[in-house]
Amino acid sequence: MAFGWIDEQAAARRRAGLVRTLRPRPADSPLLDLASNDYLGLARHPEVVAGAEAAARTWGGGATGSRLVTGTTELHGELERELADFCGFEAALVFSSGYAANLAAVTALAPHGSLIVSDAGNHASLIDGCRLARGTTQVVAHADPDAVGKALGTHEGPAVAVSDTVFSVDGDAAPLAGLAEACREHGAGLVVDDAHGLGVLGAGGRGAPHAAGLAGADDVVVTVTLSKSLGSQGGAVLGPARVVEHLVNAARTFIFDTGLAPAAAGAALAALRLLGNEPERATRAREVATALHARLTAAGLEAVRPDAAVVSVRAPSPEEAVQWAADCRAAGLLVGCFRPPSVPDGISRLRLTARADLSEEQIERAVRVIGGTRP
Amino acid sequence: MAFGWIDEQAAARRRAGLVRTLRPRPADSPLLDLASNDYLGLARHPEVVAGAEAAARTWGGGATGSRLVTGTTELHGELERELADFCGFEAALVFSSGYAANLAAVTALAPHGSLIVSDAGNHASLIDGCRLARGTTQVVAHADPDAVGKALGTHEGPAVAVSDTVFSVDGDAAPLAGLAEACREHGAGLVVDDAHGLGVLGAGGRGAPHAAGLAGADDVVVTVTLSKSLGSQGGAVLGPARVVEHLVNAARTFIFDTGLAPAAAGAALAALRLLGNEPERATRAREVATALHARLTAAGLEAVRPDAAVVSVRAPSPEEAVQWAADCRAAGLLVGCFRPPSVPDGISRLRLTARADLSEEQIERAVRVIGGTRP
Repeated sequence: MAFGWIDEQAAARRRAGLVRTLRPRPADSPLLDLASNDYLGLARHPEVVAGAEAAARTWGGGATGSRLVTGTTELHGELERELADFCGFEAALVFSSGYAANLAAVTALAPHGSLIVSDAGNHASLIDGCRLARGTTQVVAHADPDAVGKALGTHEGPAVAVSDTVFSVDGDAAPLAGLAEACREHGAGLVVDDAHGLGVLGAGGRGAPHAAGLAGADDVVVTVTLSKSLGSQGGAVLGPARVVEHLVNAARTFIFDTGLAPAAAGAALAALRLLGNEPERATRAREVATALHARLTAAGLEAVRPDAAVVSVRAPSPEEAVQWAADCRAAGLLVGCFRPPSVPDGISRLRLTARADLSEEQIERAVRVIGGTRP
Repeated sequence: MAFGWIDEQAAARRRAGLVRTLRPRPADSPLLDLASNDYLGLARHPEVVAGAEAAARTWGGGATGSRLVTGTTELHGELERELADFCGFEAALVFSSGYAANLAAVTALAPHGSLIVSDAGNHASLIDGCRLARGTTQVVAHADPDAVGKALGTHEGPAVAVSDTVFSVDGDAAPLAGLAEACREHGAGLVVDDAHGLGVLGAGGRGAPHAAGLAGADDVVVTVTLSKSLGSQGGAVLGPARVVEHLVNAARTFIFDTGLAPAAAGAALAALRLLGNEPERATRAREVATALHARLTAAGLEAVRPDAAVVSVRAPSPEEAVQWAADCRAAGLLVGCFRPPSVPDGISRLRLTARADLSEEQIERAVRVIGGTRP
């Protein structure tokens, strides 16, 4: 039968304890949320919601076409200008998701004959970008500028190094200054995904590239998401104007996708303006992460010191990770549970996100529950 | 310099007259729109807008995480149930875009060692799915079930045939019954993208697979978009429950992407309910397409007979196509302009979409303008 082989894979997943199921959440969940990527607590902020509503009223439910046909509204233009200005880049281009932005940046900047040097811990969307690109990919050791330099040294012609700025699984930061130096030494471009940095790192949340002094550099391209600290949906590529013009003309996930829905653009723009007016939100997200890590460690748990707002706690096995997360949930706490095949190193963990709007009492409660349910 | 090669490509594009630029549109554009994919005229329908607004108020600006972590709301579940029921399939899975849905369906259903037989006219997102999949792709002649059967006959093991149901460029329909027969003869699955069929073809707009008697078949998987006839953003995969479960566990663009924004889910659900209550909208879109084609042909223009709601008009060259579209715009009419590299056959054309809410007067005006500005 056509899809018979699927049942064998499903049986193997069941045996390995790796079955994933969707669990729709209600709007008024009583759970304490340390699982979402809503780092600044803006997704349900009244101004963000009002931004979504106003955009839907003004522009309708959808963008109605590709950005190159009817899918670019003045709202998209406004969001792109403000995003670029905030992060310190010449231009920005908005996509329907961060995934699409990463596919676009990597494929359009790695033509036939080029080299892509990719960090071993990169996000799936960067990896898929490498696989789709016409250039050749060389995967190098995690967070290792020397390895990047060495790989770039083997190649003549266009080349880019590609890395997350903050790695999603463990929350550790990439050595951006070192990466930029290695790239410049070899005339290569640097493409970094700041999905977990925007809104959290840098002055007022301007992101990891801004903090590393790379904002506006003519050899640096940054991708961001509108769906994490900005509480909406979508992604963007920031960089020199000519890179953005190139993407408009060459990036398939830009040309052949419907434009981002106006409501998502409106919500992201409202969140961006809030962040501009309340830069302390970024500081607070980092403080919460530091506090979480300190208390977890004091409670004897193996947590990775956070460079941004992701705090990762090691679990002994996939099964115990799943049980641990389930026990947390039963005790009123929602945490992420990352396990194979979503983790590059095969290590299962609880993944906590440090929202800026968590109170001291909530942080204490979270640590109490996690410690009390440890396997 | 890092991205120096971009300037050479930009210069080549300028010389070839193939530069694309973004043109942000105002909310109150006076242009008559025959360029968007808003086939049923629902994007700005008050109930669709209200659906977006209510969802943003209830759920916030974004889904806050991957569908497997915090990104599945009860609203997503509701939309998936109603979409599956409407189109006649066992289950549905919603994605942040149709592009992501196509990448998911093709990659997850074409494992290592499998064969993908892909129509030469397929959409970029299906092609990228083939390129990302671990299986081997064989491209076959456009709309040719015999060629599909022949290709499938060369392979042992899992196989799928992949096709658009309505091809975006010329608006012609795939021979679905023939494709399904060729697949069944060889025990292969059929994966079809109904982006331009949903809401237009089939009883009450239930789509091309429904019209071909393939709804609910255990060897057929359908992808759709929420951004065309449903006036919102997003995509979905419809099929047997076990295929959907497989995607939840295996599709990278599902697992590693943020869930669709609540406002987009709410808008799409409202549009789906409108279509259920007003099935004549689908009929009307087809009537408008037929009327457009008849009048364009009567005016001596070379238009392709539409199988759905896309009407394609041939232009002599890319430059003349661009000028023609610009002249239409100057005369108050917005039309799409497709040219290399967005057209598989290298032929440039004006692309018109037949919205269900166009009046007789508007159809006449459109034909008058197109005829009066022809190169």
